Amino acid sequence: MYLSTSDQKKEATEWFISLRDQICSAFEKLEEDYNGPNKSMAPGKFARKHWDRDGGGGGVMSIMEGRLFEKVGVNVSTVMGTFSQEFSKEITGAQDDPRFWASGISVVAHMWSPHVPAVHMNTRHITTTKSWFGGGSDLTPMVRNDDDKEIFHSAFEATCNRYDLTYYPRFKKWCDEYFYLAHRNEPRGIGGIFYDQLDDNFESDFLFTKDIGSTFNTVFPKIVQRHMDDTWTEKQREMQLIKRGRYVEFNLLHDRGTLFGLKTGGNVEAILMSLPPQVAWPAPSL
Amino acid sequence: MYLSTSDQKKEATEWFISLRDQICSAFEKLEEDYNGPNKSMAPGKFARKHWDRDGGGGGVMSIMEGRLFEKVGVNVSTVMGTFSQEFSKEITGAQDDPRFWASGISVVAHMWSPHVPAVHMNTRHITTTKSWFGGGSDLTPMVRNDDDKEIFHSAFEATCNRYDLTYYPRFKKWCDEYFYLAHRNEPRGIGGIFYDQLDDNFESDFLFTKDIGSTFNTVFPKIVQRHMDDTWTEKQREMQLIKRGRYVEFNLLHDRGTLFGLKTGGNVEAILMSLPPQVAWPAPSL
Repeated sequence: MYLSTSDQKKEATEWFISLRDQICSAFEKLEEDYNGPNKSMAPGKFARKHWDRDGGGGGVMSIMEGRLFEKVGVNVSTVMGTFSQEFSKEITGAQDDPRFWASGISVVAHMWSPHVPAVHMNTRHITTTKSWFGGGSDLTPMVRNDDDKEIFHSAFEATCNRYDLTYYPRFKKWCDEYFYLAHRNEPRGIGGIFYDQLDDNFESDFLFTKDIGSTFNTVFPKIVQRHMDDTWTEKQREMQLIKRGRYVEFNLLHDRGTLFGLKTGGNVEAILMSLPPQVAWPAPSL
Repeated sequence: MYLSTSDQKKEATEWFISLRDQICSAFEKLEEDYNGPNKSMAPGKFARKHWDRDGGGGGVMSIMEGRLFEKVGVNVSTVMGTFSQEFSKEITGAQDDPRFWASGISVVAHMWSPHVPAVHMNTRHITTTKSWFGGGSDLTPMVRNDDDKEIFHSAFEATCNRYDLTYYPRFKKWCDEYFYLAHRNEPRGIGGIFYDQLDDNFESDFLFTKDIGSTFNTVFPKIVQRHMDDTWTEKQREMQLIKRGRYVEFNLLHDRGTLFGLKTGGNVEAILMSLPPQVAWPAPSL
């Protein structure tokens, strides 16, 4: 519907960078507060790596390998250019004019503790001859679930309900459908929300998208704190590494964002930042 | 060209089973002869797991987790049925009659030692309204190469040359093109041979395919023996786990066999037997 102005693009980009800073600072705080099995290690700090995109724009990866966060990437990017003829057909508003502009933030965290879920959050603003917001967040518990699912969903439900009572049921369902391993007939995790092509009007869509980012940065640390100091067994760690294998299978076989990025010459390092640091595929049990 | 008779199908199936037994026995012998860093562990033995296919046929996985072979699968299967309309379009000879029969053997070995390459070998016989053989073998060194590449290629070149002087150059090139990680602009390993749709005549194509299996079972153990007792460093093991990540990326993003199997409801356990037991994707270096 709407086409965002350069002021709006600037505003969106600045928000993603501000959210990146808020998330990095919340995660570093968790590293400091941590008092679990790895406490003899030094608390982790984010490091940054810039990259430029052939064709226009670039991004910054914020990377931390800590004592609580085994590997976490908080990536922001703002890219622009022209879709190939093949891809412009598939993109809203790009059929007749293949130019695009896109800005967003993407977070994937894999934790040392099998008791703390892995998490993903991504929000983005895209402009072709149309313009929209998209994003979402989903949680992947490893060996236990407890009340994490309820806490995670309730937080996003409350946020959604402040904007539109149809959002949460629609976006929860979309998330369940998206993060599904068809080849194994199993979900990646316990879901969350997923939305795309939100183009009612810039102001309210942007407010909602900001609120999703802030909700993530409140609810995920809360879930981390519930379990982060608990000890784990070798068996639980092994179960975590196997569950992470499913995460890899999803991202490389099914995730449209990953496949689209790799096929359109995106930054491989930034795209595959989502892959877990250690993974196991043991031989099938007999 | 030719359509294989039921005697020919039986002969092919029996060969794949016989080759499976020969390979398992050669690999168990290597486990016994092993005198490297893991020698205090017991030598591995293969275990078997049968599976039935909805729609017809099934297979047997032979699985070993040893002290030299960290994880190796030697799978045989014979399956038959009807391709979905979507897939029959893509398969030679299945456009007008979607019935198929297929039998084959597939081997993937991942070794404890970073000095010993991972290896893949697969040969198969397929019948639709046409009939053909296909297969190949390729080697993936982890942290060193030495003369392994030369030894591996020479063995397959000599075998190819006994049948047709055009085979080796064509099948080597095909292998290099197939086992290529387009998203990283890098090959999976050092290649080998890959062939498909070989349908000159059953007798000579079958002889060639048998010879490829036997060549594999001579040359790979020879390469293993060259390095299997060497010690390795933690750094080399880490490099191996990272290189294995590339193997996973290839199999899940690019390997047509894997993707075809998963999309057509193949046995997920048998198909994903190819994935390495332990893999690492560390954070990008700064």
